[in-house]
Amino acid sequence: MTQSVIARQRAESDARTNGCYLNPDKDFLDDLFQGIVKNEERYGYPLCPCRLATGKLDFDADVICPCIYRDIDVLEYGCCYCALYVRKDVYEGKTTIGPISERRPKELQIRAYGTAGQTAKPSPVSIGTLSEKPKEMASENLAQPTEVNRKAWYCRQCGYVSYREIPPYICPICKAKQEMFARLEIGADFRG
Amino acid sequence: MTQSVIARQRAESDARTNGCYLNPDKDFLDDLFQGIVKNEERYGYPLCPCRLATGKLDFDADVICPCIYRDIDVLEYGCCYCALYVRKDVYEGKTTIGPISERRPKELQIRAYGTAGQTAKPSPVSIGTLSEKPKEMASENLAQPTEVNRKAWYCRQCGYVSYREIPPYICPICKAKQEMFARLEIGADFRG
Amino acid sequence: MTQSVIARQRAESDARTNGCYLNPDKDFLDDLFQGIVKNEERYGYPLCPCRLATGKLDFDADVICPCIYRDIDVLEYGCCYCALYVRKDVYEGKTTIGPISERRPKELQIRAYGTAGQTAKPSPVSIGTLSEKPKEMASENLAQPTEVNRKAWYCRQCGYVSYREIPPYICPICKAKQEMFARLEIGADFRG
Repeated sequence: MTQSVIARQRAESDARTNGCYLNPDKDFLDDLFQGIVKNEERYGYPLCPCRLATGKLDFDADVICPCIYRDIDVLEYGCCYCALYVRKDVYEGKTTIGPISERRPKELQIRAYGTAGQTAKPSPVSIGTLSEKPKEMASENLAQPTEVNRKAWYCRQCGYVSYREIPPYICPICKAKQEMFARLEIGADFRG
Repeated sequence: MTQSVIARQRAESDARTNGCYLNPDKDFLDDLFQGIVKNEERYGYPLCPCRLATGKLDFDADVICPCIYRDIDVLEYGCCYCALYVRKDVYEGKTTIGPISERRPKELQIRAYGTAGQTAKPSPVSIGTLSEKPKEMASENLAQPTEVNRKAWYCRQCGYVSYREIPPYICPICKAKQEMFARLEIGADFRG
Repeated sequence: MTQSVIARQRAESDARTNGCYLNPDKDFLDDLFQGIVKNEERYGYPLCPCRLATGKLDFDADVICPCIYRDIDVLEYGCCYCALYVRKDVYEGKTTIGPISERRPKELQIRAYGTAGQTAKPSPVSIGTLSEKPKEMASENLAQPTEVNRKAWYCRQCGYVSYREIPPYICPICKAKQEMFARLEIGADFRG
Protein backbone atom coordinates (compact mmCIF):
# COMPACT_ATOMS: atom_id res chain seq x y z
CA MET A 1 0.00 0.00 0.00
CA THR A 2 1.51 3.33 -1.01
CA GLN A 3 2.02 6.20 1.42
CA SER A 4 -0.49 8.17 -0.61
CA VAL A 5 -3.20 5.56 0.01
CA ILE A 6 -2.42 5.62 3.74
CA ALA A 7 -2.66 9.41 3.75
CA ARG A 8 -6.04 9.15 2.08
CA GLN A 9 -7.31 6.59 4.60
CA ARG A 10 -6.18 8.76 7.46
CA ALA A 11 -7.94 11.74 5.89
CA GLU A 12 -11.13 9.77 5.32
CA SER A 13 -11.21 8.70 8.92
CA ASP A 14 -10.45 12.23 10.01
CA ALA A 15 -13.20 13.74 7.87
CA ARG A 16 -15.72 11.33 9.32
CA THR A 17 -14.54 12.16 12.82
CA ASN A 18 -14.84 15.89 12.39
CA GLY A 19 -18.05 16.07 10.48
CA CYS A 20 -16.77 16.97 7.04
CA TYR A 21 -15.99 15.23 3.73
CA LEU A 22 -13.15 14.76 1.28
CA ASN A 23 -13.24 16.71 -1.96
CA PRO A 24 -15.09 14.48 -4.46
CA ASP A 25 -12.58 15.30 -7.23
CA LYS A 26 -10.28 12.26 -7.14
CA ASP A 27 -7.46 13.59 -9.29
CA PHE A 28 -7.33 16.81 -7.34
CA LEU A 29 -7.22 14.79 -4.11
CA ASP A 30 -4.39 12.61 -5.44
CA ASP A 31 -2.25 15.67 -6.04
CA LEU A 32 -2.91 16.91 -2.53
CA PHE A 33 -2.09 13.56 -0.92
CA GLN A 34 1.13 13.32 -2.88
CA GLY A 35 2.01 16.79 -1.61
CA ILE A 36 1.26 15.74 1.96
CA VAL A 37 3.34 12.58 1.62
CA LYS A 38 6.28 14.59 0.24
CA ASN A 39 5.97 17.03 3.11
CA GLU A 40 5.93 14.20 5.62
CA GLU A 41 9.11 12.77 4.12
CA ARG A 42 10.74 16.19 4.13
CA TYR A 43 9.73 17.48 7.57
CA GLY A 44 8.60 14.42 9.47
CA TYR A 45 5.01 15.60 9.68
CA PRO A 46 2.22 15.95 7.10
CA LEU A 47 2.40 19.67 6.48
CA CYS A 48 -0.42 21.29 4.54
CA PRO A 49 0.50 21.10 0.85
CA CYS A 50 -0.59 24.71 0.32
CA ARG A 51 1.48 26.41 3.02
CA LEU A 52 5.10 27.26 3.71
CA ALA A 53 6.93 25.53 6.54
CA THR A 54 9.67 26.62 8.91
CA GLY A 55 10.68 23.01 9.39
CA LYS A 56 10.24 23.38 13.15
CA LEU A 57 7.29 21.36 14.34
CA ASP A 58 6.06 23.76 16.99
CA PHE A 59 6.04 26.67 14.55
CA ASP A 60 4.34 24.65 11.84
CA ALA A 61 1.85 22.88 14.10
CA ASP A 62 -1.05 25.10 13.07
CA VAL A 63 -0.68 24.09 9.42
CA ILE A 64 -0.04 20.40 9.79
CA CYS A 65 -2.90 18.74 7.95
CA PRO A 66 -5.63 18.90 9.17
CA CYS A 67 -4.69 22.47 9.99
CA ILE A 68 -6.29 24.26 12.93
CA TYR A 69 -8.21 26.45 10.45
CA ARG A 70 -9.84 23.48 8.75
CA ASP A 71 -13.05 23.12 10.76
CA ILE A 72 -13.97 26.79 10.74
CA ASP A 73 -13.06 27.20 7.06
CA VAL A 74 -15.15 24.19 6.09
CA LEU A 75 -18.06 25.55 8.10
CA GLU A 76 -17.83 29.14 6.83
CA TYR A 77 -16.44 28.78 3.31
CA GLY A 78 -17.52 25.24 2.47
CA CYS A 79 -13.94 23.94 2.29
CA CYS A 80 -10.52 24.20 3.88
CA TYR A 81 -7.77 26.40 2.46
CA CYS A 82 -6.57 23.60 0.15
CA ALA A 83 -10.10 22.43 -0.65
CA LEU A 84 -9.07 18.96 0.52
CA TYR A 85 -11.89 18.89 3.09
CA VAL A 86 -15.35 20.13 2.15
CA ARG A 87 -18.75 20.69 3.70
CA LYS A 88 -21.58 18.22 3.14
CA ASP A 89 -23.46 20.42 0.66
CA VAL A 90 -20.27 20.95 -1.32
CA TYR A 91 -19.53 17.23 -1.27
CA GLU A 92 -23.02 16.60 -2.62
CA GLY A 93 -22.55 19.14 -5.39
CA LYS A 94 -25.28 21.47 -4.12
CA THR A 95 -22.91 24.36 -3.48
CA THR A 96 -19.94 25.60 -5.46
CA ILE A 97 -16.81 26.66 -3.63
CA GLY A 98 -15.84 30.30 -3.91
CA PRO A 99 -12.49 31.91 -3.12
CA ILE A 100 -11.09 31.25 0.34
CA SER A 101 -9.10 33.83 2.20
CA GLU A 102 -6.14 32.70 4.30
CA ARG A 103 -7.11 32.65 7.96
CA ARG A 104 -3.59 31.96 9.18
CA PRO A 105 -2.36 35.11 10.92
CA LYS A 106 0.14 37.16 8.93
CA GLU A 107 2.73 36.93 11.69
CA LEU A 108 2.79 33.16 11.37
CA GLN A 109 3.10 33.40 7.60
CA ILE A 110 5.95 35.78 8.10
CA ARG A 111 7.66 33.39 10.49
CA ALA A 112 7.52 30.72 7.84
CA TYR A 113 8.79 33.09 5.18
CA GLY A 114 11.64 34.13 7.42
CA THR A 115 13.00 30.63 7.56
CA ALA A 116 11.86 29.39 4.20
CA GLY A 117 15.19 30.15 2.59
CA GLN A 118 16.98 28.06 5.18
CA THR A 119 15.08 24.91 6.03
CA ALA A 120 11.85 25.03 4.10
CA LYS A 121 11.11 24.69 0.42
CA PRO A 122 8.01 25.81 -1.43
CA SER A 123 5.42 23.10 -1.21
CA PRO A 124 4.93 20.82 -4.19
CA VAL A 125 1.28 21.66 -4.57
CA SER A 126 0.53 25.33 -4.38
CA ILE A 127 -3.10 26.23 -4.66
CA GLY A 128 -2.82 28.79 -1.90
CA THR A 129 -2.17 32.49 -2.15
CA LEU A 130 1.31 32.71 -0.69
CA SER A 131 2.90 33.60 -4.00
CA GLU A 132 3.27 37.14 -2.77
CA LYS A 133 5.19 38.09 0.30
CA PRO A 134 2.88 39.71 2.88
CA LYS A 135 3.70 43.42 2.88
CA GLU A 136 4.06 43.40 6.69
CA MET A 137 7.25 41.45 6.18
CA ALA A 138 9.90 43.88 7.20
CA SER A 139 13.31 42.31 7.04
CA GLU A 140 13.89 42.66 10.78
CA ASN A 141 10.90 40.41 11.39
CA LEU A 142 12.33 37.62 9.38
CA ALA A 143 15.39 36.98 11.50
CA GLN A 144 13.94 35.40 14.60
CA PRO A 145 10.84 33.29 14.79
CA THR A 146 8.74 34.17 17.80
CA GLU A 147 8.30 31.84 20.75
CA VAL A 148 5.55 29.24 20.88
CA ASN A 149 3.57 29.92 24.01
CA ARG A 150 1.00 27.23 24.67
CA LYS A 151 -1.76 27.70 27.20
CA ALA A 152 -4.54 25.53 28.51
CA TRP A 153 -8.04 26.37 27.27
CA TYR A 154 -11.43 24.86 27.99
CA CYS A 155 -14.73 25.06 26.19
CA ARG A 156 -17.29 26.71 28.46
CA GLN A 157 -20.02 24.78 26.67
CA CYS A 158 -18.80 21.18 26.81
CA GLY A 159 -15.62 21.26 28.92
CA TYR A 160 -13.19 20.15 26.20
CA VAL A 161 -9.60 20.96 27.16
CA SER A 162 -6.95 21.98 24.65
CA TYR A 163 -3.32 22.99 25.11
CA ARG A 164 -2.16 25.34 22.37
CA GLU A 165 -1.29 28.93 21.52
CA ILE A 166 -4.80 30.07 20.68
CA PRO A 167 -8.06 28.33 21.47
CA PRO A 168 -9.66 26.24 18.71
CA TYR A 169 -11.63 28.29 16.19
CA ILE A 170 -14.39 25.78 16.69
CA CYS A 171 -14.69 23.19 19.44
CA PRO A 172 -13.92 19.76 17.97
CA ILE A 173 -16.39 18.15 20.36
CA CYS A 174 -19.45 20.41 20.45
CA LYS A 175 -18.70 22.85 17.59
CA ALA A 176 -18.92 25.90 19.88
CA LYS A 177 -17.34 29.07 18.56
CA GLN A 178 -13.89 30.26 19.62
CA GLU A 179 -15.43 32.87 21.90
CA MET A 180 -16.71 30.03 24.09
CA PHE A 181 -13.18 29.07 25.11
CA ALA A 182 -11.63 30.47 28.26
CA ARG A 183 -8.22 30.10 29.88
CA LEU A 184 -8.03 27.19 32.24
CA GLU A 185 -7.28 28.71 35.61
CA ILE A 186 -5.96 25.96 37.76
CA GLY A 187 -5.49 26.62 41.40
CA ALA A 188 -6.01 24.67 44.58
CA ASP A 189 -8.79 22.71 42.94
CA PHE A 190 -6.39 21.11 40.52
CA ARG A 191 -3.65 20.52 43.03
CA GLY A 192 -5.84 19.00 45.73
CA MET B 1 -26.79 32.39 3.48
CA THR B 2 -29.23 32.75 6.34
CA GLN B 3 -28.30 32.20 9.98
CA SER B 4 -30.69 29.28 9.99
CA VAL B 5 -28.77 27.55 7.21
CA ILE B 6 -25.52 28.10 9.10
CA ALA B 7 -27.08 26.64 12.24
CA ARG B 8 -28.12 23.60 10.25
CA GLN B 9 -24.65 23.13 8.77
CA ARG B 10 -23.09 23.37 12.19
CA ALA B 11 -25.57 20.81 13.50
CA GLU B 12 -24.94 18.45 10.58
CA SER B 13 -21.23 18.58 11.20
CA ASP B 14 -21.80 18.11 14.90
CA ALA B 15 -24.08 15.09 14.40
CA ARG B 16 -21.50 13.44 12.19
CA THR B 17 -18.79 14.13 14.75
CA ASN B 18 -20.71 12.66 17.64
CA GLY B 19 -22.19 9.64 15.98
CA CYS B 20 -25.80 10.71 15.68
CA TYR B 21 -28.15 12.15 13.02
CA LEU B 22 -30.46 15.10 12.46
CA ASN B 23 -34.19 14.50 12.70
CA PRO B 24 -35.33 13.60 9.17
CA ASP B 25 -38.43 15.83 9.46
CA LYS B 26 -37.32 18.97 7.62
CA ASP B 27 -40.12 21.31 8.71
CA PHE B 28 -39.70 20.29 12.31
CA LEU B 29 -35.96 20.93 12.02
CA ASP B 30 -36.53 24.34 10.48
CA ASP B 31 -38.56 25.41 13.49
CA LEU B 32 -35.85 24.24 15.84
CA PHE B 33 -33.09 26.02 13.93
CA GLN B 34 -35.10 29.23 13.91
CA GLY B 35 -35.46 28.88 17.66
CA ILE B 36 -31.72 28.35 18.06
CA VAL B 37 -30.93 31.36 15.89
CA LYS B 38 -33.32 33.54 17.91
CA ASN B 39 -31.72 32.34 21.12
CA GLU B 40 -28.27 33.11 19.79
CA GLU B 41 -29.35 36.65 18.91
CA ARG B 42 -30.92 37.08 22.32
CA TYR B 43 -28.26 35.55 24.57
CA GLY B 44 -25.16 35.41 22.44
CA TYR B 45 -25.11 31.61 22.42
CA PRO B 46 -27.28 28.98 20.74
CA LEU B 47 -29.42 27.96 23.69
CA CYS B 48 -31.54 24.84 23.36
CA PRO B 49 -34.89 25.95 21.90
CA CYS B 50 -36.77 23.77 24.40
CA ARG B 51 -35.26 25.05 27.64
CA LEU B 52 -35.35 28.15 29.78
CA ALA B 53 -32.26 30.34 30.09
CA THR B 54 -30.86 32.47 32.89
CA GLY B 55 -29.03 34.57 30.33
CA LYS B 56 -25.75 33.86 32.13
CA LEU B 57 -23.52 31.70 30.00
CA ASP B 58 -22.00 29.63 32.80
CA PHE B 59 -25.41 28.77 34.21
CA ASP B 60 -26.85 27.96 30.81
CA ALA B 61 -23.81 26.06 29.51
CA ASP B 62 -25.38 22.65 30.04
CA VAL B 63 -28.28 23.49 27.74
CA ILE B 64 -26.47 25.28 24.96
CA CYS B 65 -27.14 23.20 21.87
CA PRO B 66 -25.81 20.52 21.69
CA CYS B 67 -26.67 20.19 25.36
CA ILE B 68 -24.61 17.98 27.64
CA TYR B 69 -27.55 15.57 27.84
CA ARG B 70 -27.70 15.06 24.09
CA ASP B 71 -25.40 12.05 23.65
CA ILE B 72 -26.85 10.00 26.48
CA ASP B 73 -30.44 10.88 25.51
CA VAL B 74 -29.85 9.92 21.90
CA LEU B 75 -28.30 6.65 23.02
CA GLU B 76 -30.98 5.77 25.58
CA TYR B 77 -34.15 7.35 24.20
CA GLY B 78 -33.30 7.51 20.52
CA CYS B 79 -33.30 11.31 20.42
CA CYS B 80 -32.32 14.39 22.39
CA TYR B 81 -34.80 16.34 24.51
CA CYS B 82 -35.83 18.48 21.52
CA ALA B 83 -35.71 15.57 19.09
CA LEU B 84 -33.32 17.61 16.98
CA TYR B 85 -30.67 14.86 17.12
CA VAL B 86 -31.69 11.23 16.71
CA ARG B 87 -30.16 7.77 16.78
CA LYS B 88 -29.35 5.91 13.59
CA ASP B 89 -32.31 3.52 13.79
CA VAL B 90 -34.67 6.45 14.39
CA TYR B 91 -33.14 8.35 11.48
CA GLU B 92 -33.72 5.32 9.28
CA GLY B 93 -37.35 5.04 10.39
CA LYS B 94 -36.88 1.66 12.07
CA THR B 95 -37.76 2.93 15.53
CA THR B 96 -40.38 5.43 16.68
CA ILE B 97 -39.48 7.95 19.33
CA GLY B 98 -41.36 7.71 22.59
CA PRO B 99 -41.66 10.31 25.33
CA ILE B 100 -38.40 11.70 26.70
CA SER B 101 -38.01 12.66 30.30
CA GLU B 102 -35.95 15.73 31.16
CA ARG B 103 -32.52 14.67 32.39
CA ARG B 104 -31.50 18.18 33.41
CA PRO B 105 -31.37 18.25 37.23
CA LYS B 106 -34.27 20.04 38.87
CA GLU B 107 -31.95 22.44 40.68
CA LEU B 108 -30.68 23.75 37.36
CA GLN B 109 -34.21 24.11 36.03
CA ILE B 110 -35.07 26.02 39.16
CA ARG B 111 -32.07 28.29 38.69
CA ALA B 112 -33.34 29.17 35.24
CA TYR B 113 -36.86 29.72 36.53
CA GLY B 114 -35.56 31.93 39.29
CA THR B 115 -34.08 34.36 36.80
CA ALA B 116 -36.53 33.84 33.99
CA GLY B 117 -38.60 36.82 34.98
CA GLN B 118 -35.57 39.04 34.88
CA THR B 119 -33.29 38.24 31.98
CA ALA B 120 -34.76 35.23 30.26
CA LYS B 121 -37.87 34.83 28.14
CA PRO B 122 -39.69 31.64 27.28
CA SER B 123 -38.07 30.12 24.25
CA PRO B 124 -39.75 30.55 20.86
CA VAL B 125 -40.03 26.82 20.29
CA SER B 126 -41.31 24.94 23.25
CA ILE B 127 -41.61 21.24 22.78
CA GLY B 128 -40.22 20.57 26.22
CA THR B 129 -42.10 19.97 29.42
CA LEU B 130 -41.20 23.07 31.36
CA SER B 131 -44.72 24.46 31.22
CA GLU B 132 -45.15 23.54 34.85
CA LYS B 133 -42.96 24.88 37.60
CA PRO B 134 -41.10 22.05 39.33
CA LYS B 135 -42.72 21.62 42.71
CA GLU B 136 -39.33 21.78 44.46
CA MET B 137 -39.29 25.46 43.58
CA ALA B 138 -39.66 27.11 46.92
CA SER B 139 -39.50 30.85 46.59
CA GLU B 140 -36.32 31.08 48.65
CA ASN B 141 -34.54 28.95 46.09
CA LEU B 142 -35.33 31.31 43.30
CA ALA B 143 -33.48 34.30 44.63
CA GLN B 144 -29.86 33.34 44.19
CA PRO B 145 -28.47 31.18 41.46
CA THR B 146 -25.90 28.74 42.81
CA GLU B 147 -22.22 28.97 41.95
CA VAL B 148 -20.72 27.22 38.96
CA ASN B 149 -17.97 24.97 40.25
CA ARG B 150 -16.00 23.39 37.45
CA LYS B 151 -13.62 20.52 38.07
CA ALA B 152 -11.23 18.53 35.92
CA TRP B 153 -12.34 15.01 35.03
CA TYR B 154 -10.73 12.28 32.99
CA CYS B 155 -12.09 9.16 31.36
CA ARG B 156 -10.48 6.11 32.93
CA GLN B 157 -11.02 4.25 29.69
CA CYS B 158 -9.50 6.55 27.07
CA GLY B 159 -7.95 9.44 29.03
CA TYR B 160 -10.19 12.23 27.68
CA VAL B 161 -10.03 15.31 29.89
CA SER B 162 -12.99 17.59 30.52
CA TYR B 163 -13.37 20.67 32.70
CA ARG B 164 -16.95 21.11 33.88
CA GLU B 165 -19.29 20.80 36.84
CA ILE B 166 -20.18 17.16 36.35
CA PRO B 167 -18.41 14.60 34.19
CA PRO B 168 -19.86 13.91 30.74
CA TYR B 169 -22.80 11.50 30.78
CA ILE B 170 -21.02 9.69 28.01
CA CYS B 171 -17.42 10.12 26.90
CA PRO B 172 -17.39 12.03 23.60
CA ILE B 173 -14.30 10.10 22.49
CA CYS B 174 -14.86 6.46 23.47
CA LYS B 175 -18.54 6.52 24.57
CA ALA B 176 -17.73 5.24 28.06
CA LYS B 177 -20.41 5.75 30.68
CA GLN B 178 -20.30 8.57 33.22
CA GLU B 179 -19.15 6.15 35.94
CA MET B 180 -15.87 5.77 34.06
CA PHE B 181 -14.91 9.37 34.78
CA ALA B 182 -12.79 10.24 37.80
CA ARG B 183 -11.54 13.51 39.24
CA LEU B 184 -8.21 14.54 37.85
CA GLU B 185 -5.91 14.61 40.85
CA ILE B 186 -2.94 16.63 39.86
CA GLY B 187 0.04 16.68 42.12
CA ALA B 188 3.77 16.65 41.65
CA ASP B 189 3.37 14.70 38.44
CA PHE B 190 1.63 17.59 36.78
CA ARG B 191 3.91 20.26 38.14
CA GLY B 192 7.17 18.48 37.39
CA MET C 1 -34.45 -3.58 24.13
CA THR C 2 -31.78 -6.14 24.89
CA GLN C 3 -28.36 -5.24 26.26
CA SER C 4 -26.86 -6.55 23.06
CA VAL C 5 -28.85 -4.06 20.98
CA ILE C 6 -27.71 -1.25 23.28
CA ALA C 7 -24.11 -2.38 22.90
CA ARG C 8 -24.53 -2.30 19.14
CA GLN C 9 -26.03 1.19 19.18
CA ARG C 10 -23.20 2.45 21.34
CA ALA C 11 -20.69 0.87 18.96
CA GLU C 12 -22.42 2.35 15.91
CA SER C 13 -22.28 5.80 17.43
CA ASP C 14 -18.68 5.26 18.43
CA ALA C 15 -17.65 4.10 14.97
CA ARG C 16 -19.22 7.17 13.43
CA THR C 17 -17.45 9.39 15.94
CA ASN C 18 -14.04 7.93 15.33
CA GLY C 19 -14.13 7.60 11.61
CA CYS C 20 -14.48 3.85 11.24
CA TYR C 21 -17.26 1.28 10.59
CA LEU C 22 -18.75 -1.84 12.13
CA ASN C 23 -17.91 -5.17 10.58
CA PRO C 24 -20.61 -5.79 7.93
CA ASP C 25 -20.98 -9.46 8.99
CA LYS C 26 -24.06 -9.35 11.23
CA ASP C 27 -23.76 -12.80 12.80
CA PHE C 28 -20.13 -12.25 13.62
CA LEU C 29 -21.03 -8.89 15.19
CA ASP C 30 -23.79 -10.48 17.26
CA ASP C 31 -21.30 -12.88 18.81
CA LEU C 32 -18.98 -10.05 19.66
CA PHE C 33 -21.71 -7.93 21.23
CA GLN C 34 -22.88 -10.86 23.31
CA GLY C 35 -19.32 -11.27 24.52
CA ILE C 36 -19.11 -7.59 25.39
CA VAL C 37 -22.40 -7.71 27.27
CA LYS C 38 -21.25 -10.76 29.25
CA ASN C 39 -18.00 -9.01 30.08
CA GLU C 40 -19.88 -5.93 31.25
CA GLU C 41 -22.03 -8.06 33.55
CA ARG C 42 -18.97 -9.85 34.88
CA TYR C 43 -16.57 -6.93 35.37
CA GLY C 44 -18.75 -3.86 35.30
CA TYR C 45 -17.20 -2.57 32.08
CA PRO C 46 -17.40 -3.71 28.45
CA LEU C 47 -14.09 -5.52 28.19
CA CYS C 48 -12.87 -6.51 24.74
CA PRO C 49 -14.31 -9.97 24.01
CA CYS C 50 -10.95 -11.13 22.65
CA ARG C 51 -8.70 -10.26 25.60
CA LEU C 52 -8.06 -11.45 29.12
CA ALA C 53 -9.00 -9.26 32.06
CA THR C 54 -7.51 -8.74 35.50
CA GLY C 55 -10.89 -7.60 36.77
CA LYS C 56 -9.32 -4.35 37.95
CA LEU C 57 -10.56 -1.43 35.90
CA ASP C 58 -7.32 0.55 35.81
CA PHE C 59 -5.34 -2.47 34.62
CA ASP C 60 -7.91 -3.40 32.03
CA ALA C 61 -8.62 0.13 30.81
CA ASP C 62 -6.54 -0.26 27.66
CA VAL C 63 -8.68 -3.18 26.47
CA ILE C 64 -12.12 -1.92 27.37
CA CYS C 65 -13.98 -1.76 24.08
CA PRO C 66 -13.15 0.35 22.11
CA CYS C 67 -9.62 -0.48 23.17
CA ILE C 68 -6.85 2.09 22.91
CA TYR C 69 -5.36 0.09 20.02
CA ARG C 70 -8.51 0.28 17.95
CA ASP C 71 -7.89 3.44 15.91
CA ILE C 72 -4.33 2.62 14.93
CA ASP C 73 -5.21 -1.02 14.16
CA VAL C 74 -8.13 0.02 11.98
CA LEU C 75 -5.92 2.48 10.15
CA GLU C 76 -2.96 0.15 9.67
CA TYR C 77 -4.55 -3.31 9.43
CA GLY C 78 -8.04 -2.39 8.26
CA CYS C 79 -9.69 -3.64 11.45
CA CYS C 80 -9.28 -3.81 15.21
CA TYR C 81 -7.94 -6.89 17.00
CA CYS C 82 -11.43 -8.42 17.21
CA ALA C 83 -12.43 -7.25 13.74
CA LEU C 84 -15.43 -5.56 15.31
CA TYR C 85 -14.42 -2.16 13.87
CA VAL C 86 -13.18 -1.93 10.30
CA ARG C 87 -11.82 0.64 7.88
CA LYS C 88 -14.01 2.14 5.17
CA ASP C 89 -12.55 0.11 2.31
CA VAL C 90 -12.98 -3.08 4.33
CA TYR C 91 -16.56 -2.13 5.16
CA GLU C 92 -17.22 -1.60 1.46
CA GLY C 93 -15.74 -4.99 0.60
CA LYS C 94 -12.86 -3.51 -1.42
CA THR C 95 -10.16 -4.91 0.85
CA THR C 96 -9.91 -8.25 2.63
CA ILE C 97 -8.65 -8.34 6.19
CA GLY C 98 -5.41 -10.17 6.81
CA PRO C 99 -4.00 -11.43 10.11
CA ILE C 100 -3.67 -8.86 12.87
CA SER C 101 -0.85 -8.95 15.35
CA GLU C 102 -1.58 -8.04 18.98
CA ARG C 103 -0.39 -4.51 19.67
CA ARG C 104 -1.02 -4.74 23.41
CA PRO C 105 2.38 -4.79 25.13
CA LYS C 106 3.44 -8.18 26.46
CA GLU C 107 3.81 -6.83 29.99
CA LEU C 108 0.14 -5.92 30.07
CA GLN C 109 -0.83 -9.32 28.72
CA ILE C 110 1.29 -10.88 31.42
CA ARG C 111 -0.38 -8.77 34.06
CA ALA C 112 -3.74 -10.12 32.94
CA TYR C 113 -2.44 -13.66 32.87
CA GLY C 114 -1.02 -13.26 36.32
CA THR C 115 -4.44 -12.58 37.77
CA ALA C 116 -6.51 -14.58 35.35
CA GLY C 117 -6.62 -17.58 37.65
CA GLN C 118 -7.96 -15.42 40.45
CA THR C 119 -10.48 -12.89 39.24
CA ALA C 120 -10.63 -13.22 35.48
CA LYS C 121 -12.01 -15.94 33.27
CA PRO C 122 -11.27 -16.58 29.62
CA SER C 123 -13.57 -14.44 27.53
CA PRO C 124 -16.61 -16.07 25.93
CA VAL C 125 -15.57 -15.08 22.45
CA SER C 126 -11.95 -15.78 21.73
CA ILE C 127 -10.80 -14.82 18.29
CA GLY C 128 -7.54 -13.45 19.63
CA THR C 129 -4.21 -15.16 19.96
CA LEU C 130 -3.87 -15.42 23.70
CA SER C 131 -4.22 -19.19 23.71
CA GLU C 132 -0.51 -19.42 24.34
CA LYS C 133 1.19 -17.93 27.32
CA PRO C 134 3.77 -15.33 26.26
CA LYS C 135 7.16 -16.85 26.87
CA GLU C 136 8.32 -13.78 28.78
CA MET C 137 5.95 -14.86 31.51
CA ALA C 138 8.31 -15.92 34.24
CA SER C 139 6.41 -16.99 37.31
CA GLU C 140 7.85 -14.14 39.39
CA ASN C 141 6.21 -11.65 37.04
CA LEU C 142 2.80 -13.06 37.59
CA ALA C 143 2.54 -12.32 41.28
CA GLN C 144 2.16 -8.58 41.39
CA PRO C 145 0.52 -6.44 38.77
CA THR C 146 2.51 -3.29 38.11
CA GLU C 147 1.27 0.16 39.06
CA VAL C 148 -0.87 2.26 36.79
CA ASN C 149 0.96 5.52 36.28
CA ARG C 150 -1.11 8.03 34.37
CA LYS C 151 0.40 11.19 32.93
CA ALA C 152 -0.95 14.17 31.08
CA TRP C 153 -0.17 14.30 27.35
CA TYR C 154 -1.03 16.82 24.68
CA CYS C 155 -1.06 16.61 20.91
CA ARG C 156 1.46 19.06 19.50
CA GLN C 157 -0.63 19.30 16.36
CA CYS C 158 -4.11 20.10 17.65
CA GLY C 159 -3.71 20.53 21.43
CA TYR C 160 -5.86 17.57 22.50
CA VAL C 161 -5.16 16.62 26.13
CA SER C 162 -5.26 13.06 27.41
CA TYR C 163 -4.53 11.59 30.83
CA ARG C 164 -3.29 8.02 30.60
CA GLU C 165 -0.23 5.77 30.87
CA ILE C 166 0.93 6.15 27.30
CA PRO C 167 -0.13 8.75 24.75
CA PRO C 168 -2.81 7.76 22.23
CA TYR C 169 -1.46 5.76 19.29
CA ILE C 170 -3.39 8.17 17.13
CA CYS C 171 -4.93 11.48 18.13
CA PRO C 172 -8.72 11.02 18.36
CA ILE C 173 -9.24 14.61 17.21
CA CYS C 174 -6.76 15.23 14.37
CA LYS C 175 -5.43 11.69 13.75
CA ALA C 176 -1.82 12.72 14.40
CA LYS C 177 0.61 9.89 15.12
CA GLN C 178 1.71 8.98 18.62
CA GLU C 179 5.05 10.72 18.10
CA MET C 180 3.19 14.03 18.00
CA PHE C 181 2.23 13.74 21.67
CA ALA C 182 4.38 15.32 24.35
CA ARG C 183 4.17 15.38 28.13
CA LEU C 184 2.14 18.25 29.45
CA GLU C 185 4.57 20.28 31.49
CA ILE C 186 2.52 22.39 33.79
CA GLY C 187 4.26 25.06 35.69
CA ALA C 188 3.54 28.64 36.58
CA ASP C 189 1.45 29.05 33.47
CA PHE C 190 -1.08 26.54 34.69
CA ARG C 191 -1.12 27.70 38.26
CA GLY C 192 -1.36 31.41 37.49
